[in-house]
Amino acid sequence: MISPLLGTSFIGYTRSTSATVCGHGVQPGTGTQLEPAYLAASPEEVERAMSLAAAAFPAFSILSGKVRAKFLRDAAAEIEAVVEDIVERGQLETALPEARLRGETGRTTGQLRLFAELIEEGSWVDARIERADPDSKPLPKVDLRSMLRPIGPVAVFCAGNFPLAYSVAGGDTASALAAGCPVVVIAHSSHPGVAEIVASAVVRAARANEMPEGVFSVLYGGGRSVGQTVVKHPAIQAVGFTGSRAGGTALMDTANARPQPIPVYAEMSSINPVVILPGALARGEQALAEGFFGSLTLGVGQFCTNPGLVFLPTGTGEDFLNHLTSLTAVGSPGTMLNAAICNSFVGATARVANTPGVETLASSGKEAGPGQGKPSLFIVSVADFLAHDSLQDEMFGPATLIVRGSLQEIEAAIPHLQGQLTASLHATDEELTAHAGLVHALQQRAGRLIYNGFPTGVQVCNSIVHGGPFPATSDGRSTSVGPMAIFRFCRPVAWQSFPDAALPAELQDANPLGIRRME
Amino acid sequence: MISPLLGTSFIGYTRSTSATVCGHGVQPGTGTQLEPAYLAASPEEVERAMSLAAAAFPAFSILSGKVRAKFLRDAAAEIEAVVEDIVERGQLETALPEARLRGETGRTTGQLRLFAELIEEGSWVDARIERADPDSKPLPKVDLRSMLRPIGPVAVFCAGNFPLAYSVAGGDTASALAAGCPVVVIAHSSHPGVAEIVASAVVRAARANEMPEGVFSVLYGGGRSVGQTVVKHPAIQAVGFTGSRAGGTALMDTANARPQPIPVYAEMSSINPVVILPGALARGEQALAEGFFGSLTLGVGQFCTNPGLVFLPTGTGEDFLNHLTSLTAVGSPGTMLNAAICNSFVGATARVANTPGVETLASSGKEAGPGQGKPSLFIVSVADFLAHDSLQDEMFGPATLIVRGSLQEIEAAIPHLQGQLTASLHATDEELTAHAGLVHALQQRAGRLIYNGFPTGVQVCNSIVHGGPFPATSDGRSTSVGPMAIFRFCRPVAWQSFPDAALPAELQDANPLGIRRME
Repeated sequence: MISPLLGTSFIGYTRSTSATVCGHGVQPGTGTQLEPAYLAASPEEVERAMSLAAAAFPAFSILSGKVRAKFLRDAAAEIEAVVEDIVERGQLETALPEARLRGETGRTTGQLRLFAELIEEGSWVDARIERADPDSKPLPKVDLRSMLRPIGPVAVFCAGNFPLAYSVAGGDTASALAAGCPVVVIAHSSHPGVAEIVASAVVRAARANEMPEGVFSVLYGGGRSVGQTVVKHPAIQAVGFTGSRAGGTALMDTANARPQPIPVYAEMSSINPVVILPGALARGEQALAEGFFGSLTLGVGQFCTNPGLVFLPTGTGEDFLNHLTSLTAVGSPGTMLNAAICNSFVGATARVANTPGVETLASSGKEAGPGQGKPSLFIVSVADFLAHDSLQDEMFGPATLIVRGSLQEIEAAIPHLQGQLTASLHATDEELTAHAGLVHALQQRAGRLIYNGFPTGVQVCNSIVHGGPFPATSDGRSTSVGPMAIFRFCRPVAWQSFPDAALPAELQDANPLGIRRME
Repeated sequence: MISPLLGTSFIGYTRSTSATVCGHGVQPGTGTQLEPAYLAASPEEVERAMSLAAAAFPAFSILSGKVRAKFLRDAAAEIEAVVEDIVERGQLETALPEARLRGETGRTTGQLRLFAELIEEGSWVDARIERADPDSKPLPKVDLRSMLRPIGPVAVFCAGNFPLAYSVAGGDTASALAAGCPVVVIAHSSHPGVAEIVASAVVRAARANEMPEGVFSVLYGGGRSVGQTVVKHPAIQAVGFTGSRAGGTALMDTANARPQPIPVYAEMSSINPVVILPGALARGEQALAEGFFGSLTLGVGQFCTNPGLVFLPTGTGEDFLNHLTSLTAVGSPGTMLNAAICNSFVGATARVANTPGVETLASSGKEAGPGQGKPSLFIVSVADFLAHDSLQDEMFGPATLIVRGSLQEIEAAIPHLQGQLTASLHATDEELTAHAGLVHALQQRAGRLIYNGFPTGVQVCNSIVHGGPFPATSDGRSTSVGPMAIFRFCRPVAWQSFPDAALPAELQDANPLGIRRME
């Protein structure tokens, strides 16, 4: 550990002096408390983080993309420099394996560099230039130029299931800082130590780049009180969140009840339907079952893209089902991220098992240790599935529900699905053509359509969409992964009849930044 | 009149058979009821309009941009063909002058053609293509392509103050249809006849182009009940509204309380601050007063961009103030759009006049006839302005509040302003540089910054931003005017590993539409 953990919040460039313990990191499974104790930021400290963010915004928002990019790149380098600390502490706090923690650190630094590249290049601001034309008919034209500008300070909630890529310096933070918005992070109780290690790295980069104090704060606090205070604060102009549907909708309600409502980007719950057509089964039912089971149990099923629903036409796929049942029966229970997630998973599978019409096909025959979740497989008819809305509630963990019915019934059921991050279709090219209506129905319910693949594994690139209609996210017009995530924290602003020298560089006549513009 | 007015709703391609009168057009000022009676769509008819819209969506959403563009162009031509009917009925219903009605018809058809051009060209969908790369490190890359897709059926509320450009076939309708979303319009009680004339024209174009029935319906109804029913309906996926803050926030609350919350784009209230620096006064105070008074009283002040607030540094601008006072004192009262708007204006000016610290500088000395609003001018100190939040409430009509204080006080007051559609600065280029902080503060509060100009007059072009932070609009990330308005009714969708033939044309390898793509 390059510096000992202090257990205190980051209020701009100072550390909290609070003495109120709000929790410890806890080793999943064993329940062992990890040192140090984490201390809740005091109300005065929370207020100070807000004021610093508000005060930092004007200066930070007008820094050039190149200057902000250097900060993001340096933050990535500082995080890489402490990867061993992250891996060591992360394994203790989250029970995630070393390879996953290394991989997720790589994804996090990769995301920071992706946004750095985007803002260094600069064309993302969608600059639009209409020059004056006094002779235009029926009305003379004024000079009018527009571009995207940052929205203001952003509150970012760390995710329980991604201690790095969706936490302190994850996609929400990276995209907000890239846009020019100061960020106030609310740490997650599941991995406070990793949060502190990463926060220290980002603060080192911010100081080294002489960023205005307040562009970045990280707050610890018990329960939801600090988070609610932050979201209600007038300085905050948008919210990023990844977590449960209850948590996300609570933040939406808080944000909507403000005197000035603000956008909330909450990525909440998705069961990621998979539709299997006969042609895909004909290619090999056992291999399909193996691929599916791998996606279902990856990371003990704790991904927002976990496939929790499978539509399988009646009279097909017996081998697929049998093989999946066998794999499930011998599958190993896995230690989940924390006790709350594990309890919630056990409760969700019991609820599904007890829903009328649902049959439990298989559950791992191995005994689950403390804090462990068992692979589980349920089956139900389309009619019973549609009759019980609660069967669309997420079972966050390695469990899935097979839904059987005729192809016509399946196609008719799709529009009744809630919004999803992903929808997957296993089929042949001929079936894709023959069932265009089914494909289109799936498209209307999801942000990403997958052909002959599985939904876990999100490729971070220009074209990724990690978002979807409610309740997959609070705002299906957005993605929380990839460069388009920056659009969440911006709004267009137009300048009318301004002299060239008073315009942002992006809009000046000579195009000094050499960006792509509409003119 | 090419066909007599029936007074009935348009439920897809049929007309309502309801017999429940919900109101008449009323001649402002005289209060004369105009024929025919308007009949409220029955609950069954509203439900049918919703089902038709939902059923039309899949087919309409996959029509090519060229086909939808032809529909929009034909709608523009059909509207032009009935411009004489619009002008005749419009003058009766709204008291707007002929030239305004002709101009607004031109703006409306121009907007339809602007969106037609946008979707004919096709690049607006922001197509992004990442090709598969099995050799990519650390992970192989899958083929992933994304573009914007329509969000679903949209409810559009007609505006009281723009019977054409923000009503049945106004910017909300044009942008939603262009995106591929069916539209259900809720007519405004202030101009039901114009609504019927325009709706008939759009329906003729929809039929001629064999658009699926339900892409366009127009509903009449009493009070807010039909509108609330529509916004609550599960088929509706977004809302466009231009009107009062009370009306807009009521729709936001309804939309947020749905099982599936949906976006509301409400353009509500803005007082459009104007800051006048000494250098601008030095160029001629009387001319500035005349220009300002013209903007203030244009259309009897009934524009969302009406300048309702002026910051004038203490010890400057006495001639400006004196001249503005004289112009106001001799200004003519004007007939307002309807009795409710007139009553609300009279109430708002009385409220401001009675606020502690506010002095009435001038009010037209001419007697206001029935339904008329008088130009009115008030003055207050920065300190008293900041002490009374209600002074930021819109006086919808030809009234403005002058706020006086030192330049330092004015600059410090700007961050306390609510969100605005526009902010105007009258200054010299040297002052613009010297007061960069003031300019930046104004930018943070508004969607459009105007230099040495007045806020009324919205240029419809690629770079226009007609939106702003709450309460100017419900969603400051959007514009309701110009091509960017289409983004309100879309969401990004990604296709992973799809065969080329099953992709939308915009994403196919050969780029058959020849659009600009990121690849």
